Amino acid sequence: MKKTVTDLDLHDQMIALGDAAKAAQKILQRSSHAVRQNALKAAAAAIREAEADLLEANAADVAQAREMGKDDAFIDRLALDEGRINGMAAGLDAIAERPDPLGAIDQSWDRADGMHFDRVRVPLGVVAVIFESRPNVAADAAALCLKSGNATILRGGSESRRSVERILQAVRHGLEKAGLPAEAVNIVPTQDRAAVGELFRMTEHIDLLIPRGGRSLVARVQEESRVPVLGHLMGVNHSYVHASADPKMAQEVVVNAKMRRTGVCGATETMLIDRAIASEMLPGLVHALSAAGCRVRGDATAKSICPEIEAADESDWDQEWLDAVIGVHVVDGVDEALQHIDQHGTGHTECILASDQEVADRFLRDVDAAIVMHNASTQFADGGEFGFGAEIGIATGRLHARGPVGAEHLTSYHYHVRGTGHIRP
Amino acid sequence: MKKTVTDLDLHDQMIALGDAAKAAQKILQRSSHAVRQNALKAAAAAIREAEADLLEANAADVAQAREMGKDDAFIDRLALDEGRINGMAAGLDAIAERPDPLGAIDQSWDRADGMHFDRVRVPLGVVAVIFESRPNVAADAAALCLKSGNATILRGGSESRRSVERILQAVRHGLEKAGLPAEAVNIVPTQDRAAVGELFRMTEHIDLLIPRGGRSLVARVQEESRVPVLGHLMGVNHSYVHASADPKMAQEVVVNAKMRRTGVCGATETMLIDRAIASEMLPGLVHALSAAGCRVRGDATAKSICPEIEAADESDWDQEWLDAVIGVHVVDGVDEALQHIDQHGTGHTECILASDQEVADRFLRDVDAAIVMHNASTQFADGGEFGFGAEIGIATGRLHARGPVGAEHLTSYHYHVRGTGHIRP
Repeated sequence: MKKTVTDLDLHDQMIALGDAAKAAQKILQRSSHAVRQNALKAAAAAIREAEADLLEANAADVAQAREMGKDDAFIDRLALDEGRINGMAAGLDAIAERPDPLGAIDQSWDRADGMHFDRVRVPLGVVAVIFESRPNVAADAAALCLKSGNATILRGGSESRRSVERILQAVRHGLEKAGLPAEAVNIVPTQDRAAVGELFRMTEHIDLLIPRGGRSLVARVQEESRVPVLGHLMGVNHSYVHASADPKMAQEVVVNAKMRRTGVCGATETMLIDRAIASEMLPGLVHALSAAGCRVRGDATAKSICPEIEAADESDWDQEWLDAVIGVHVVDGVDEALQHIDQHGTGHTECILASDQEVADRFLRDVDAAIVMHNASTQFADGGEFGFGAEIGIATGRLHARGPVGAEHLTSYHYHVRGTGHIRP
Repeated sequence: MKKTVTDLDLHDQMIALGDAAKAAQKILQRSSHAVRQNALKAAAAAIREAEADLLEANAADVAQAREMGKDDAFIDRLALDEGRINGMAAGLDAIAERPDPLGAIDQSWDRADGMHFDRVRVPLGVVAVIFESRPNVAADAAALCLKSGNATILRGGSESRRSVERILQAVRHGLEKAGLPAEAVNIVPTQDRAAVGELFRMTEHIDLLIPRGGRSLVARVQEESRVPVLGHLMGVNHSYVHASADPKMAQEVVVNAKMRRTGVCGATETMLIDRAIASEMLPGLVHALSAAGCRVRGDATAKSICPEIEAADESDWDQEWLDAVIGVHVVDGVDEALQHIDQHGTGHTECILASDQEVADRFLRDVDAAIVMHNASTQFADGGEFGFGAEIGIATGRLHARGPVGAEHLTSYHYHVRGTGHIRP
């Protein structure tokens, strides 16, 4: 395919960006933790100082988004206020305070002949993050990568452009103040869609690509990228009420798992419930869900117990509602629950409510999902709640990292082997 | 693109193979370590029992390879004898004896509110391995995957077809004897090249693809596969003789690193040597290498010290000779050595010979390679030597696993979160 002059310009521009990121990463890789901490703290301070500027830039983004007819949920993700700006800065400070993910020795052993082996954590290299409207993703992603010695190339949605540029200006200021190159954090300088296609092919410059956005973005990245991807697909998560569940606990946990925030990937989408206790426990569960404002859609058995609920159809079991709707499916015990989750789960977060410890252990072991919970709300599926300080996303694949991805998951390792002149026979 | 009937047949055949592997993997994933150990031991016994058969099948493969005009090095990789068959069986027994890589708890912590977190090792799923002529790769790959609860789909070179089929028959016998499904280990049933293209697109069936072969295979896989790849690229490995190196140790280690086996990916390809000690140490090193049968190609400085050596040109620094040839480049200390390795190394194995501990530590830390050695031969770059029992290859990328890949590296993890009715505020 012949490239037009504009294509070539874009290509050259992206390669130059990649070269700059790569060169800066080498310096970052060899920097001390204290220097990276200083950069993070200086970036946090710069964000606080830029509050007025940042509010102004964000107001312009929000005004434009409203003109484009974006809905309230979108505006809510985009909009910044003093609280959110402070939260962003506090997040950077918190990341600074956490232990250094680099240089840590994972494993260590000696051979009988005296050769010594250490497995040591090192950065991945250059991490590209494609995200949509939330400006704070830029701060979190840049900070987690900086902490872990990775350079970043960020590509945000056009709607948050002004806000993201201002945030990154603060982060780059922090880098420079700590004596690190500003090019450790980069933003794709154009909103041209072709730039994303360029990112997909920059295998010499980008070590990992993280798509943070809706399923169409993730699907496009997984289909087209030549660069390795750490993606999260949908979270069709289940809360399974086992026959041994405590009824009151089940109600509280299921309502929270579904309704605390319905738009997050850790929200429960389907409730499974054992046939043995369905007629006894389902009415209370349905009542509690309805009272919390949730539509309930059940299979034939569920509807025969609670005729007031809507009728679910087969396609319900694959729905990620991200809304105040829940599917209810009655199962014959843990085997059928596992089978249903095998078939319809997306490997994100699954939960069992049970007082029978053996059954719970089996569920934890046998469910093939990033996070498996016992007697706790699926809404805890979050890097912050896991204690990782922040997260760059939740990985649902099985390679490299799985579940919430914090700074420590943005590292690789290599081996140090020390001998005293050892030669191999 | 319209598919022909044959293409469709092949496609359906491959999907059926993938479905079978996936179903078998679910059973393997939930099997106990004792059962997987029994399968490995029964497979080892079956290989020993099949010795006569296996020698016959291999003799037919070798005869055909000779007819096709394959060279001696190729025949050597292909040929089996009693020793190699015993070695293969012993390898399976050794893998059986190693600890279970599944169910191990990597990390464990509690929240202040009593929620408990465990990070637990689980299998990856279905692993496809594409390899060339060495039949023992089939046994190692199948055994390492079985140990780690992964199903395998193997695709070997046509030259080793008969031998590989016989080996896998033994492994499948072992699986069945232990009560596990034979479909946990599969071989692509056709030598049709299009079958490899099918593997590249089976993202629903294959979790990881491992190419084990020459650079053209690895390059094709990395260019075309939609399935995630754990590949090793070339090993352009350096042995760097620092000014503080012990001359005798440097000679022994460099000669071993280059000459023990020249065709392995851990062989040294270029020697770097400090200018400060070049005139003093280089003649001895060149003499030792030449005496061992190695051609030496040096830069202008090296040649001015040892006029008898060949003249290297710039392209030498990117050569993976895999032969009795070594490039010699004189550098101005560790900084220039690191720079040269940054530019020409392939991230495989790098070594420093030095008695200065500080310099060695800096080299270990700053070299971006899977394996970095101090005063030890690069020929130790091998899963067996690392104590992993066996290896399925050496990964030179930074994602998922790096360096020798044993059973424990063919796992992922997931989180078990235990609460007592915890809901998220």
